[in-house]
Amino acid sequence: MESLISYAEEQPPSSLMTNSSSLKQESNESGSPKCVGGFVLVHAGAGYHSESKAKEYKHVCKRACQRAVDQLRAGALAVEAVTAALVELEDSPFTNAGLGSNLNLSGEIECDASIMDGKSLHFGAVGSISGIKNPVLVANCLLNEAQKGKLSAGRIPPCFLVGPGAHDWAVSHGIPPCPSEKMATRFSLSAYKRNKRKMELAEGTVPGQNRTKKRRQSSENGNGSGCLDTVGAVVVDLEGNVAAAVSSGGLAMKHPGRIGQAAHYGCGCWAENSGNMNPYSTAVSTSGCGEHLIRTMLARECAAAMQSEDAHQALLEAMQNKFISSPFLTSEDRVLGGVIVLRCCRCVEAQPSPNIQGILVEFLWSHTTESMCVGYMSAQDSKAKTHISRLPPGTVPGQSLAIEGGVCRLKGD
Amino acid sequence: MESLISYAEEQPPSSLMTNSSSLKQESNESGSPKCVGGFVLVHAGAGYHSESKAKEYKHVCKRACQRAVDQLRAGALAVEAVTAALVELEDSPFTNAGLGSNLNLSGEIECDASIMDGKSLHFGAVGSISGIKNPVLVANCLLNEAQKGKLSAGRIPPCFLVGPGAHDWAVSHGIPPCPSEKMATRFSLSAYKRNKRKMELAEGTVPGQNRTKKRRQSSENGNGSGCLDTVGAVVVDLEGNVAAAVSSGGLAMKHPGRIGQAAHYGCGCWAENSGNMNPYSTAVSTSGCGEHLIRTMLARECAAAMQSEDAHQALLEAMQNKFISSPFLTSEDRVLGGVIVLRCCRCVEAQPSPNIQGILVEFLWSHTTESMCVGYMSAQDSKAKTHISRLPPGTVPGQSLAIEGGVCRLKGD
Repeated sequence: MESLISYAEEQPPSSLMTNSSSLKQESNESGSPKCVGGFVLVHAGAGYHSESKAKEYKHVCKRACQRAVDQLRAGALAVEAVTAALVELEDSPFTNAGLGSNLNLSGEIECDASIMDGKSLHFGAVGSISGIKNPVLVANCLLNEAQKGKLSAGRIPPCFLVGPGAHDWAVSHGIPPCPSEKMATRFSLSAYKRNKRKMELAEGTVPGQNRTKKRRQSSENGNGSGCLDTVGAVVVDLEGNVAAAVSSGGLAMKHPGRIGQAAHYGCGCWAENSGNMNPYSTAVSTSGCGEHLIRTMLARECAAAMQSEDAHQALLEAMQNKFISSPFLTSEDRVLGGVIVLRCCRCVEAQPSPNIQGILVEFLWSHTTESMCVGYMSAQDSKAKTHISRLPPGTVPGQSLAIEGGVCRLKGD
Repeated sequence: MESLISYAEEQPPSSLMTNSSSLKQESNESGSPKCVGGFVLVHAGAGYHSESKAKEYKHVCKRACQRAVDQLRAGALAVEAVTAALVELEDSPFTNAGLGSNLNLSGEIECDASIMDGKSLHFGAVGSISGIKNPVLVANCLLNEAQKGKLSAGRIPPCFLVGPGAHDWAVSHGIPPCPSEKMATRFSLSAYKRNKRKMELAEGTVPGQNRTKKRRQSSENGNGSGCLDTVGAVVVDLEGNVAAAVSSGGLAMKHPGRIGQAAHYGCGCWAENSGNMNPYSTAVSTSGCGEHLIRTMLARECAAAMQSEDAHQALLEAMQNKFISSPFLTSEDRVLGGVIVLRCCRCVEAQPSPNIQGILVEFLWSHTTESMCVGYMSAQDSKAKTHISRLPPGTVPGQSLAIEGGVCRLKGD
């Protein structure tokens, strides 16, 4: 695979904002392409990725990219390819999505997922769903069913289902149930026990301990960005359609029934083909603290910002003004999240003929959490590239940001 | 009560868009006010209100306005007053919210509700909640709890809960459960039986009948705007803060677990005090087909449009361009919904002294459904005004719109 990305030297952090890398264009000039193919960018969460776990996260991102590219090479549309990437990410026991998701306050797994098709602008989402190995498949099925038109007696098909109703709908549409005990992993169970103990200590409810602690307290013991490893992907296909998806087990120890950004329209993912008003096709997937991402509608805000000329500058400003300094989050001391973004437009090829159009893909990621794991691959590449982006040393998570990205030129037929 | 609204002559329908009334300013000049008080605008749904039911709908709107004004006169903030209005609307067996909500496919009641505080910009929502008489109280409680800061061990409080988890959270926060059988009414049960029969006929599953009908069909039998009577309210209080809320039993015969716009951030309601970027405080509540309102994010779009100079023209364009002709709904033949909108700004009083500031409130409603029932009242009024707005004869629901409104001047102390 050719190098699609080029990292600049790290800038010294300036005030709250850190621009840890700058975007540089580098086109892919290798060989003569057989088809335009497409491009995928995935993330395994904005949070904290220890060096010891980094290898596993990179591995799963690599596999997810490969799955999407396999689909693209077979002629699949963006929405199918993005689903394939998500299934791989959900199936990893290391990510907080599908298998191995965080357990809630009751020790159960409840997942959120959504998907958006930039071509039809349809959206499908499930929230607080249990007993389904791949929540993204249910979201995708909802999207597909909605596109078939009305149900009997003129009923409008749902775009967002939650809880047991979502589970039953999934099973009745051919998605197999998965026993809850198979969804938990040794890691997620031990994290649950650890978190429960931490809560009991904080609340003073440990047997034999005096009830001296306050129920509410400052963020000193928590709000760590360790458990936010939601997954997501953005894809452009050979026709130039974009799609985005996101999937999450939600915050550890969340209240049962809590819905995060991954099921929320405009917050977890966004995809919109170019149109009369929009020169660029855009796709976004987010990760981080769901409540922050909901209240700032970060996916849609970033997608809207991407219509500006300078993608890098636009994302930087969106992350700074619409997220870290958002008027919707003034009471929050640390605003934790990350995004992957893709935008593309048709461009004229220099070779072999100026009449042939290719697709220029700009892809970026940005996060205010300590780290974010991403992978990316075009259908012209032999394997995916992966990267763990980190805030520069000394900067404060939730108050600083990192932004990186690259450019890929998909050649015309 | 003084006349706060003035209706112009009905315009002849022009192409798809019908502007059935125009906005005229008429200030309230009565007596010398004791306090600024506030203003409330409520709706009992965009849908179809028969003449026979009109009286009941108007009655409940009147009572809801009175409840909100009682709160405002007692010095309550907008968010408390809007909650009081919603409780009254939910308690009516005639509205599709709380008591008397539509039954779902399984014959159960599952409600959605949300609330937004324009001052703090906090949002609370519940979806697919059963066994709670007043879902808006749960949404309001979520909003209040979130404003208290983090939970133990630094956990972030939820802003959106669904299903049994939402029910349990409500009960643990002092909201009493209500047996499901007490939520259904004679009317909602008979509508369920009628709808079920209609579905069976459409699907060919009536015992003894041949299975000849297709599962999917055109909208000829349905998509009627008869059952969309979600309720909502927008309020401005004596300090000029705005708040909005919405509550719904959802579409009749919806799939269990289906979430509509009433629980969806940016779709069911929106409230935002004036700020650096916004000269006006705005509040919006929507009603209609949830999927259409979600995919167009109609509440937030209307609120954003209200920052333009001409409120009436801005709402007209938003309803036309962001709803009826939305690129997100190109495959829909009829786009069904309605909004109530309030915007306000400080203004200098002519009397008794030019140094005293009052609040100028512009309030509007618009709908593409056959009718919409609204009520409004200022704290200076002795009773509420109510109105059933209808599309002019001959226009097509889902393709035409009506827009009406008025202006109210809240005097300074």
